[in-house]
Parts: sequence; structure tokens; C-alpha cells
Amino acid sequence: MAGPSITTVGVIGTGVIGASWTLFFLSRGLKVIVTDPAGASLANYQFVNNIFDHLHEIELVQETGPERVDFKRQLFAELDAKAPRDALLLSSSSGIPSSQFVTDCKYNPGRIMIGHPFNPPHMVPLVEVVPHPGAEEPYITNAVDFYRSLGKKPILIKKETPGFIANRLQKALYNEAYSLVTRDIVSAADLDTCITAGPGLRWSMTGPFVTNILAGGGNFKHLLEHIGTAAKVWTEDMQKHAFDLNPETINILDVKVQETIGKLDIESLQRDRDEVLLELMKLKSKTSSFE
Amino acid sequence: MAGPSITTVGVIGTGVIGASWTLFFLSRGLKVIVTDPAGASLANYQFVNNIFDHLHEIELVQETGPERVDFKRQLFAELDAKAPRDALLLSSSSGIPSSQFVTDCKYNPGRIMIGHPFNPPHMVPLVEVVPHPGAEEPYITNAVDFYRSLGKKPILIKKETPGFIANRLQKALYNEAYSLVTRDIVSAADLDTCITAGPGLRWSMTGPFVTNILAGGGNFKHLLEHIGTAAKVWTEDMQKHAFDLNPETINILDVKVQETIGKLDIESLQRDRDEVLLELMKLKSKTSSFE
Repeated sequence: MAGPSITTVGVIGTGVIGASWTLFFLSRGLKVIVTDPAGASLANYQFVNNIFDHLHEIELVQETGPERVDFKRQLFAELDAKAPRDALLLSSSSGIPSSQFVTDCKYNPGRIMIGHPFNPPHMVPLVEVVPHPGAEEPYITNAVDFYRSLGKKPILIKKETPGFIANRLQKALYNEAYSLVTRDIVSAADLDTCITAGPGLRWSMTGPFVTNILAGGGNFKHLLEHIGTAAKVWTEDMQKHAFDLNPETINILDVKVQETIGKLDIESLQRDRDEVLLELMKLKSKTSSFE
Repeated sequence: MAGPSITTVGVIGTGVIGASWTLFFLSRGLKVIVTDPAGASLANYQFVNNIFDHLHEIELVQETGPERVDFKRQLFAELDAKAPRDALLLSSSSGIPSSQFVTDCKYNPGRIMIGHPFNPPHMVPLVEVVPHPGAEEPYITNAVDFYRSLGKKPILIKKETPGFIANRLQKALYNEAYSLVTRDIVSAADLDTCITAGPGLRWSMTGPFVTNILAGGGNFKHLLEHIGTAAKVWTEDMQKHAFDLNPETINILDVKVQETIGKLDIESLQRDRDEVLLELMKLKSKTSSFE
């Protein structure tokens, strides 16, 4: 049975996400067999065939191919038919729940699920493990344990839901950010500062619930009851001004963003971010609260 | 004219926020004259009178009294009448826009506005500066410059809006978090991990817009157009399952939070958080991107 004792991994796809997974698995001492089915040429199709010749060596597949249901449905049917019966078959898909592509898997679809990473996966610890309704224990636990054994922070999404969890939470925040800047309540640069000099600092250590518990002096219920009325007014006002994404609002928002953020030095920004991120994770791991 | 050259500050209110402001101003070498109008007793009212005897010495007032419109309306009318004409009069209110309490100010209401800090103010750099429609330049610029000169990260809220900015952005995220956990999509502990091991790590350095720009390879508009369709599906599903705060849902959510988070060691958690926060801010200040 596959699990944290896994030593050889197949990575399907060599885009940003796939390459980053490969780097991550290699850095943890695992053997990685890579292929890339990108494009529709016969040569690439032959290339795909290579991984099937190696499936008997593999205990876990991390698929990072194109985000197309038909592609994944065919690939997983073949993986399911040819991989060892207990090999975990994990897809990096950020948006296609596995229930949509296990439909042609006739052998052991119970070991197929989503393992959705965050860019870049060798840096950001979060992985969303999302089983479809037919996925089975102990494969689910093994997938979670596998990622955790490599130093990742896997979370279990118990029911498939559009956008899974992280993209929904991000989108909830971003929709309100888009609305506030489009309505000219605040500049795009000041809105970003609001997060990076305020709530974002705390969210790197305490999530919504622990942050609420601390704000409530240890009592979550008290906090919810205490801020209830004010919070309802904010929520109603946010719903009233909900951002509607369309070509016109995208244009307005883009102009606003250019006004105060404009051109960034992407390379130095990412370098600085990754450096601080690495140190921040080291700092957290030294504490008993955030290890 | 008041501004970054300010040397003496009056703090009205000695609760958590007021005490924290006092500590912060003192740590920056400012002279601080403190009073506390808490309660409605005559003795306390006399105590308030003391600050008025000292108003001629003061160039800026940071008010942190009770969150009651009538209280603030009366206090600011008196401050406005008795403080030097150009002294900045700032309220720490998190929820009462100053337009609601400048109504009785007959002398110079243009120098009255909100300077809303985040707990604890000697640690978290964010301050929301929220002028009412009658607030005037250069008082607005002076308030922003004053906070910035002390090492704060002030942002300007251009139009009064319920919850200002930070509380709305937090609430948008929390509402979706409450919904997901109430619906049993994910445990409360895993939801917190989703933020602290994922988006929250990035938000300590890059806000919504810069994060989007990086995700779009330097192109904000491209990102919005690219994720548009998928994001609409997520948004519609979030709206369909919007969390409704009421005594029943508070109970359900509280039980869920207890299940996986339960009792925390608040003191060591806050100590660890403040230690990492301090180091994180030092790390950021050393980079050219996040100084």
C-alpha cells in the first residue's frame, strides 16, 4: 500500500507546477520519473507512453497536465488500468474535481484524488487533498500522510466544492478589494498596504478562527456575538456593492491599478518575497505555536 | 500647523487601544498627556476637564474613548472649541465615521478625522486615516505624514464606508471561512492551516493587487481575464452559500471550532506571534521591495 514510505514518484507535466513538484520531490530524496504530454503531436503522445512502461516502478503519480476534463479522464483511465493496484494517483488540478475524471476508471478509482499545490510548490507548504465521493480510506489518509511526511501542510477538503478552499477564500477577499478600488474608496497601492501592514501580517501565523479566538480574549463565540451587529452592516454593504467581473469593470480596475502600482520589478520582488518567505517559515518552525 | 514635527500628544482613553498608543508614542520620543473619561461619574468628568486645561500644549489628540456617537459628538465639539485652531483631532474609532460626530464642531471641523489603529498598535503598522467629507487638506496629509514619520503604515480611505477597509476585507474572508466550516466542507483547524500555510504567507508581503500581478506574470489585466470564468463560478457558489450570522449558526460554528481547535494556550500563542511578527517586520524592512 502506498504511503509515507514512498520512494519513487512519477510526475506528468513539466510546466511551472510540474517542474516545481519535481524539484520539491528531488529535494526530499525521492526518485522522480518525469514525462510531459503537452501539445498534441505524435511525438509527445509517444513520450506519454513512456510513463506507462515505468508504472510498475511507481507508487504514486503526481499529475500536472492540462486543465481539461477529457484529457484527465482518458489519462486517469489508463493510469488506473496500468499502475499497480494500490498506487496513489493524484492530480494537481486547481479547478477540476476528480469526480469529473474518474468516470472511466474501472479498476481502483478509490485511490484517485486531487493534491492541489500552491505556486511555487517547493516553497509554499499548503496542499489541498480533495477526494471524490468514491475515494476510499486508507488512500485518503495515505495521501495526507505522504505530503506531511515531506514537510508539506496538507489539508483535507471533505466535500468537493467549486474552487476547493484556498481559491474561494482568496477570491472572497479579492472581490471586495476589486470593489473598493473600482469605487475609488481607496487606491490600489493603499489597499495592498492595508493587507501587508495589517491583517496579512497576522494571517501568516494565525488563520481566521485562531485570529477570532485571540480577538475574543480566548472565546470565539463571544467574539461572534460581540461584533455581530456591526459585522452585519458591513456584510450587507459589501453585498450591495459586490464586484461584477466583466470587460468594462476589468478595464476600470486595470486603470486604477496602473495609477498607483504600475510597473513592478517582478524579478527582484519575487526574489525578496522568496527570501523573506524562507526566513519566515524558519522562524515559525522554531516556535511551539506555529511549528 | 500640525504635522510630523509634532512633539506633544494627548491620548484620551486608557483601554487596550489607548494604552497601546501611549506606549507607541512614548517609544518614539513624544511627550504624551493622558486622560481617561471612562464611565459616567462626575469624578471621571472632572478628570476629562484636566485634558482641556492642557489643550494649549497639545498639537494632536488621539482619542480612544467609548464607541458611542453621543459621547464622541460632545467630546469633539469641546475639543474643537478649546484646542489650538490647527491641532489635529484624531479618533481611533473602528466603526463610527467622523461625519457622525463632527456635527457640533463650530470652529475647525476640517482637522478632525479617524486614525484607526490595529491591535496591538505598537506592533501592527497599519493605520486607516478616514477623513469626513468636510475634512481639509493639508490636515489630511499632515495626519498621514504624522503616522508615517513614526514608522507606521498609514493608508488613506478617500470616502467613508461602513467598516472602513481592513474590517471589510477581513470580514469578506471570514464570512466564507464561516460558511465552509458550517457546511462541513473542511475542519476549522484545516481552514486555518489553509491560510497560514498558503495565501496568508504571501499576504504578509504582497497584497491582493501585487499578488494578482505576480500571478499574471506581470500583467494584472491578463490575470483577471484568464481566471474570469472559473472565478465567476466560485463567486456564484459563495453567494449561494453565504453565511448568515444568527444565534443558531453561531452555535453550530462554535461547536465546529471546538472540535478541532478547542482550548489554546493564549499567552504562549500571542508571545510566539509577537516574536515572529517583530522578526518578520525586520526582515521586510531589509528588502528594497517591502521596506
